Amino acid sequence: MGAKKKLKRKIKSLKAKLRKKGAAPAVSPLAPAAFPDLPVIRGARFASASAGVRYKGRTDVMLALLAPGSVLAGSFTRSATRAPSVFNAQRKIGDTAADGAAILVNSGNANAFTGAEGVAAVQSICEAVAQTLGLPESRVFTASTGVIGELLPHERITAVLDQLAAELSEASLPDAARAIMTTDTFPKGAAATVEIGGVPVQIAGIAKGSGMIAPDMATMLVYIFTDARITRPVLESMVTRLTDKTFNCITVDSDTSTSDMLLVGATCQSEAPLIELDNSPAGVAFAQALGEVMRDLAHQVVRDGEGATKFIEVVVSGARSDADARRVAFAIANSPLVKTAAAGEDPNWGRIVMAVGKSGAEADRDRLSIRLGPHLVAYQGQVARSYSEEVGAAYMKNAEIVIGVDLRLGVGAATVWTCDLTNRYIEINADYRS
Amino acid sequence: MGAKKKLKRKIKSLKAKLRKKGAAPAVSPLAPAAFPDLPVIRGARFASASAGVRYKGRTDVMLALLAPGSVLAGSFTRSATRAPSVFNAQRKIGDTAADGAAILVNSGNANAFTGAEGVAAVQSICEAVAQTLGLPESRVFTASTGVIGELLPHERITAVLDQLAAELSEASLPDAARAIMTTDTFPKGAAATVEIGGVPVQIAGIAKGSGMIAPDMATMLVYIFTDARITRPVLESMVTRLTDKTFNCITVDSDTSTSDMLLVGATCQSEAPLIELDNSPAGVAFAQALGEVMRDLAHQVVRDGEGATKFIEVVVSGARSDADARRVAFAIANSPLVKTAAAGEDPNWGRIVMAVGKSGAEADRDRLSIRLGPHLVAYQGQVARSYSEEVGAAYMKNAEIVIGVDLRLGVGAATVWTCDLTNRYIEINADYRS
Repeated sequence: MGAKKKLKRKIKSLKAKLRKKGAAPAVSPLAPAAFPDLPVIRGARFASASAGVRYKGRTDVMLALLAPGSVLAGSFTRSATRAPSVFNAQRKIGDTAADGAAILVNSGNANAFTGAEGVAAVQSICEAVAQTLGLPESRVFTASTGVIGELLPHERITAVLDQLAAELSEASLPDAARAIMTTDTFPKGAAATVEIGGVPVQIAGIAKGSGMIAPDMATMLVYIFTDARITRPVLESMVTRLTDKTFNCITVDSDTSTSDMLLVGATCQSEAPLIELDNSPAGVAFAQALGEVMRDLAHQVVRDGEGATKFIEVVVSGARSDADARRVAFAIANSPLVKTAAAGEDPNWGRIVMAVGKSGAEADRDRLSIRLGPHLVAYQGQVARSYSEEVGAAYMKNAEIVIGVDLRLGVGAATVWTCDLTNRYIEINADYRS
Repeated sequence: MGAKKKLKRKIKSLKAKLRKKGAAPAVSPLAPAAFPDLPVIRGARFASASAGVRYKGRTDVMLALLAPGSVLAGSFTRSATRAPSVFNAQRKIGDTAADGAAILVNSGNANAFTGAEGVAAVQSICEAVAQTLGLPESRVFTASTGVIGELLPHERITAVLDQLAAELSEASLPDAARAIMTTDTFPKGAAATVEIGGVPVQIAGIAKGSGMIAPDMATMLVYIFTDARITRPVLESMVTRLTDKTFNCITVDSDTSTSDMLLVGATCQSEAPLIELDNSPAGVAFAQALGEVMRDLAHQVVRDGEGATKFIEVVVSGARSDADARRVAFAIANSPLVKTAAAGEDPNWGRIVMAVGKSGAEADRDRLSIRLGPHLVAYQGQVARSYSEEVGAAYMKNAEIVIGVDLRLGVGAATVWTCDLTNRYIEINADYRS
């Protein structure tokens, strides 16, 4: 154990050195100006506490309690090595019991790849939360984000449950956003109000993620609450469809976490009419508002991408299918060469051509056109006559960049969001953990 | 045009500044000790020259001439935006005419995404080579590697054809390896001798690539020559199979070039018996030797990966199928988080778990085991009892790292090779070109 201690001390001093050298920005340059005002969601209360799972001097556990009558829907990572809390939540999410629900999240330890003990830790936490709050265990969801492969000290979490239960408040969602942060440089929140049958319905959500998705400190977790009156099947169908257009359309580094989880809880306590159909006017209006909150949070995750200095939107049109458009968009958004070019403010459209080519989607070099923001760069298989490097280089100086690709083959379209790939990403991830 | 000039001057000064700051290593730390001795291949002659396509003060064109009776086989990029020289070569490669063959390659300009003029440039070069050497145009292959999207000054190339033809020599293959370099930090060559029917048969090859595969300066090109007597169908089948196990098993940055090309030319001038069957003893022996040359060259491309400081072998076993094993191996080899961990000498096996999980291959967390070199790190869904961070951290200091993953589900296996992801990669690619 002496050697281990020595190693740890060395790591600490090296990290401090790097921090000094790297002059890491305290907050991402792409962060929103301020944390938004979040409306009260009737029937939803929140609390956070310092359990000391890993971090000192900050909160690292959050609890959400939804009143009886709430319905829940979720999206989960498809990783084959997902954490036991994810498996546990997936098993329970379809439950339609109306006893209310609780969500407990810790940061600092992902409780992933921790074998039978990890499964038992999830069970212990769920049972303790259920007992403390008087809920059936089947209505308790838990999530963990942090280092992979270390046993979760779950008794530190259960030790603060009474404190959490005592402090539950409708106003504490912003604090919860802070408690779930890991390498995030800013807390992430978003809200919307939508009128359903003349009654305002509130939606408020929080997220964490900073690197899409570094498995050991940057898992993506999203929790959204609403007082909408909505049936579980409709909420489920909306969440699935909207996740696909928002959180499943972002990438920081193409790596997928073992713990990604999105939960949407509707307390059904608004006076608005019940949303029973996906495509009713009320359903469409609510889905639009929910989608805006989800997109806003998804964008904030990209804006806090590890080392990010550019926010990049990739818009692909004219593909043979939406799936093909998505393939092209992700090939561009995940290309290290496109991302390093953005970091270097280099209008290197040849790399966009390369990414289209390797995507596997149907493409015809001689039909392809490429835009950087409003500037047509490449057209009909070669550089556009009107394009000049000066214009491209000036455009790349923007903090927000739009890459447009038109394949001119069909009507398939997709939009995805990413950030650039900088030295800081390497520093964070080459240094982090050891 | 004044603004353009000013911009260019600024770029030049910025590049010089960066070079001073970055202190880029002249040669990759993973380079072989020396360029190997290449045997003479009877019936194959080579020449190189300085055409000034882009670079000054170095050779940038190589010519290979194969005697009548030679057979050729090749592998090509599957990119949908591939260069006209690739399309041209793919069209011709099946030709069984026995008039000999020529290969002309330039560095500095990829002639990719250059529209109809790019196609015409390929045609002009092929016709000029054919005329100079007295070959049908259908037996001339050409390749270009360098910046995408700029018109190829093909007349500079055709201007040195007479000089190239006059200087053709059996001993000039090493010079050709230098002429095709772009961002490569060392020339790449490999050779093997194999006895077929008691007669030694020679194989010698060269490659370029440095970044798998940066489209604008690091296309992968491979040319291998042998005096083996072999039929075209057998050579074709071997090349396809062996490419899949060698060049298609390497990755530096997951980006695929518009111009990747591998050609194997057999002059059939050895006295050895004709290889007419893939699975005859002679066929098996020859394929093994050819495979070794191909693997050696493929490894050299990885060893010259942009910014590389670690050579990483990923060995996956126990998968449901070979395809699944390959999926897992590439998920690990392409993961920015695994690669930055390697750069930081961090035994971050949690990221390997993450990559297995996201690969899409069938995997069972509780059967999975992971090794770093000889050290068992994770076993049955959690960290191995015998493992200590100290041992892992010490192992990661090696320049060559083996990551072993056993899925314990079946007999599928795959091995791929990659390098780490360093700040230097970002510097090269954020700075390069503008």
